[in-house]
Amino acid sequence: MTDSMAASRDRGEPRDQRDLPIGVFDSGIGGLTVVREILRQLPGENVVYFGDSARVPYGGKSPETVTRFSIENTHFLARRGIKFLVVACNTASALALPVLQRRFDLPMIGVIDPGAREAVQRTRNGKIGVIGTTGTVGSRAYDRAIAEIAPDCSVEAAACPLFVPLAEEGWTEGEIPLGIARTYLDPLRGSGVDTVILGCTHYPLLRGVIADALGAEILLIDTAEVTVAEVRRRLEERGLLRPPGAGDGERHFFLSDVPVRFREIGGRFLGEPIDDLAWIEQSDIPWYER
Amino acid sequence: MTDSMAASRDRGEPRDQRDLPIGVFDSGIGGLTVVREILRQLPGENVVYFGDSARVPYGGKSPETVTRFSIENTHFLARRGIKFLVVACNTASALALPVLQRRFDLPMIGVIDPGAREAVQRTRNGKIGVIGTTGTVGSRAYDRAIAEIAPDCSVEAAACPLFVPLAEEGWTEGEIPLGIARTYLDPLRGSGVDTVILGCTHYPLLRGVIADALGAEILLIDTAEVTVAEVRRRLEERGLLRPPGAGDGERHFFLSDVPVRFREIGGRFLGEPIDDLAWIEQSDIPWYER
Repeated sequence: MTDSMAASRDRGEPRDQRDLPIGVFDSGIGGLTVVREILRQLPGENVVYFGDSARVPYGGKSPETVTRFSIENTHFLARRGIKFLVVACNTASALALPVLQRRFDLPMIGVIDPGAREAVQRTRNGKIGVIGTTGTVGSRAYDRAIAEIAPDCSVEAAACPLFVPLAEEGWTEGEIPLGIARTYLDPLRGSGVDTVILGCTHYPLLRGVIADALGAEILLIDTAEVTVAEVRRRLEERGLLRPPGAGDGERHFFLSDVPVRFREIGGRFLGEPIDDLAWIEQSDIPWYER
Repeated sequence: MTDSMAASRDRGEPRDQRDLPIGVFDSGIGGLTVVREILRQLPGENVVYFGDSARVPYGGKSPETVTRFSIENTHFLARRGIKFLVVACNTASALALPVLQRRFDLPMIGVIDPGAREAVQRTRNGKIGVIGTTGTVGSRAYDRAIAEIAPDCSVEAAACPLFVPLAEEGWTEGEIPLGIARTYLDPLRGSGVDTVILGCTHYPLLRGVIADALGAEILLIDTAEVTVAEVRRRLEERGLLRPPGAGDGERHFFLSDVPVRFREIGGRFLGEPIDDLAWIEQSDIPWYER
C-alpha cells in the first residue's frame, strides 16, 4: 500500500478506484507467469496475488471442486478490495469462470477467451491445437470460445497431465521431457494444426521441448501475454488504469501453503528472485481458518 | 453397517468395540493399496477410508500444511467411530504422526515404523535405501526410525517427485518411466544398498520399472503389506480383532473429491473394480463444509 493510500484510508476518504490492485489467482505458483506479464506490460499497477498452493494442482480434479476452490479464492481477493480479477489458472477459467461471473459483482477475465482470440487471429489454415490439463481439455472451453468467434476453425486438443509436475520439478529439458512431450504431442503434430495454445500457466516453462516435439513451423500462443494485453484494454475502457506517473505498483503475494523448494520454483515462474517479495504465512489467510 | 450393529445403535446399547471399523486415511487414493492388504490379511474387519483427493498430493507441501490436513482427516474418521487409525500416506506419517498421537486418544500407526522394521530385518549388509516424496525424504523420518531400532544400519534416500503423477497417469511401464526411474535411482543403485523401502503408497504401481532401474539383486519393501501385519498384531494385543465367523467386513469409502478418471485409477490401487463401492459426494463430508 502506498503512503497516500494508507493516509486516505485512515481519514476514511473514499479510495481512488484506480489505485485498487488487480487481483490474480491461480491454483499455485504457475500464475506468476501472469504477474510477470503485468510487471512488464502494466508496471504501474498494484497487484494482489493468491496462489492456492495447499490444494494445487486443480488439473485433474472435478469441476465441482475446482469451482468451489475458485469461489473461495475470489472471496479472499474481493475482501481485500480489487478493481479487476484475473483468473490466471486455465483449469479454473475453463471450469469456474461463468459461476464466478454470476456470483461476484466484479469485472473479471480468465485466460481462455484471450488465448482463443489470439489463436484465431494468428492461424493461417484455421486449424488450432490446444494443450492443457485433463480438466481444461475435458471441459472443451477452448473449443467453445473458438467456435463462438470463428465457427470455421477446427480445434484439436491434447491433455498433458505430466507437464505440470515436470515444470514444478524443473525438469524442462533433455531426453525425458522431450520423450514425454512427443508422446503427448505427436497426434497433434500429425493433425495439421498450425497454431497451438499453451493452455496452462506452467507450459511456457516447457516451451523448448514443446516446440521441439511439435516442430518449428507451429506457432505457440502463451496465454499470459495476451491475457494481460486484454486486462489493459478492459481497464482502459472503464477508466481504471492507474495514471502514468503514479510510480511502480506494489505487489502482495499470498499462498495457502509455502511449498518445499518454493523460492527456487517460484522464481522460475516470476522471472526474478522471489526473495524480494513478502510471502505471508498461510494462517493469515482468513478463508483458510477453521 | 451390519443390521445387528444398526439395531444395537438404535437401542442405545454400547457397540462392541471390535465391530468398530479400522480408519484409514491417505492424501488421495494411493492408500487403497493399504485397504487392499486389509481385505487380504483381515477380511473380517470393517474399514472406513478417507482419501483427501481434493487436496492431493501432500508430497511437496509444507510440514505445517500436511499436519493441518492430517488433523482434519483424523477428525473426520474419529467422529465416525473407529477402533484404530492407519495413516496410510507416507508423507503424512513422516510429518504429522507425532502430532496426531498427541492430539487424539486413539491407537494408531503410520507406515514408516513398520516399513523401517521390515527393512532392518531383511537387509543383509545393513545398507538400506528409502525412496519417497520430497516431504517424506526431507523429513528424514525413515532415517530416524531405522536409527532407533538398528543404529548400525546406514540409510540412503532419494526423492522421486514424478513417480506419483506417473502412477496416477497410469504410465507405469516403457522407456519413459524407466528413464525417469533410472535418473532418480542410479545414485541409490551405486550406493551399495541391498534393500529399498517403497516409501509412498503409489510406488508399488511402479514396482516393475523401479526393480529394473535398481537391479534384481535389490529387495523392495512394500509398506502396505507390513503395515497391515502390524495392525493385526496391535489389534490382537488389545483384544480388538473382530471375532472369526463374524463374516466379511463392510467398507465405506469417502473422498474429498471424485477426480476425473477416478474409477479407472482407483481400481488400479484397490486391485478390484471400483464400481462395487459406494463413493459419497464430497458435500457429505462434514469438515469440508463451510
